[in-house]
Amino acid sequence: MKIGVFGTGSVGSAIATALVANGHHVMMGSRSAGSERAVAWRDKTGTNAAEGSFADAASFGEIIFLCLNGAFVLDVLASIPAMDLHDKIIIDVTNPLDFSAGMPPRILPAFQTVSLGEQVQAAVPGAYVVKALNTLNYKLMVDARLVNEGDHNIFICGNDTVAKERVKDLLVENFHWRADNLLDLGDIRTAHCTEAIVPFWVLVMQSYHTPLFNFKVVH
Amino acid sequence: MKIGVFGTGSVGSAIATALVANGHHVMMGSRSAGSERAVAWRDKTGTNAAEGSFADAASFGEIIFLCLNGAFVLDVLASIPAMDLHDKIIIDVTNPLDFSAGMPPRILPAFQTVSLGEQVQAAVPGAYVVKALNTLNYKLMVDARLVNEGDHNIFICGNDTVAKERVKDLLVENFHWRADNLLDLGDIRTAHCTEAIVPFWVLVMQSYHTPLFNFKVVH
Repeated sequence: MKIGVFGTGSVGSAIATALVANGHHVMMGSRSAGSERAVAWRDKTGTNAAEGSFADAASFGEIIFLCLNGAFVLDVLASIPAMDLHDKIIIDVTNPLDFSAGMPPRILPAFQTVSLGEQVQAAVPGAYVVKALNTLNYKLMVDARLVNEGDHNIFICGNDTVAKERVKDLLVENFHWRADNLLDLGDIRTAHCTEAIVPFWVLVMQSYHTPLFNFKVVH
Repeated sequence: MKIGVFGTGSVGSAIATALVANGHHVMMGSRSAGSERAVAWRDKTGTNAAEGSFADAASFGEIIFLCLNGAFVLDVLASIPAMDLHDKIIIDVTNPLDFSAGMPPRILPAFQTVSLGEQVQAAVPGAYVVKALNTLNYKLMVDARLVNEGDHNIFICGNDTVAKERVKDLLVENFHWRADNLLDLGDIRTAHCTEAIVPFWVLVMQSYHTPLFNFKVVH
């Protein structure tokens, strides 16, 4: 599959690399084609890796991962022709975090009432936005086996049931998630709640002194 | 030990009953002495159970549990003579939830920037406020063994280390919690993060169709 990954940081690199390793063709998108980090990633990752602008990656991908700083996501989406994202699945991994008052972060004021996931969906009404993977460390996103033999949970939010199922399949097939550990919480408005637990995640990370943990629902 | 429990609802009744069953003397406090629910609880619970006003229960208890609707907690505390709570541990089980826009709830606007836990501590500066037990169902609060053989986590927030240790001991000795599953997240400001996960908890409850679950940190 052809997949666009927006973002050249730890999250974007981990996801793009894991997708290439699973045989997908991946274009890493950044503010402008030829960015130093994206070129370095492409050169070390091999022939199925490419890089370009956000618009290039949007046009290239059948599925798009958003792996950006939450504060900039809406501006980036506004810069892309709507046709390049039309009818595509957008996996929103971002969080609207405000670190200005220190740790743990707060939710940025602009997203306290209406979540970033909802605002992403509103910004690209022709696309199918699925919030996922935003509640754990990037190493675990792409290899669930790293803790508890892969037995722990992530949470899926989105308006389109078919799109959510496709995202679940992608996570199972590429990132070693167990299908029954991918919990569908409801429509994209429920992203408000998964974004809201990220400051709590930061506190637990500080308490355990490692980002390599996750939450498992036990019942 | 003599313990005051503020609140006559499901949470207050469960905690008060479990404490009496463990040999403690418990006074259930409500808006005025002689409330129908508190009297009924006392009459069915036995000789170590008493009831009275909030001020009566504050004066009676060496430790106080707050098991009230979060919207009313500060008004109740303002109605109690400061001396009745001085030097006492207050276990704050409350959440500042707003159900006015339906499910899942939101955090009440008055507590989005400064948590209810922090505002409780500010309201009773002579007491030691410990936020605990606010992230799970009342049946599980008082018997951790009900899911996963008792192996799951709760989160403790408060400014005073000695008070937090006493609360941990109380939870271990009375409610079947394992000491190493009681995670100290830091001072009372961290209550902001544990209150913020409650709307997420509601979504997970809806997804699993039971309130009898909890989160276990796996690493």
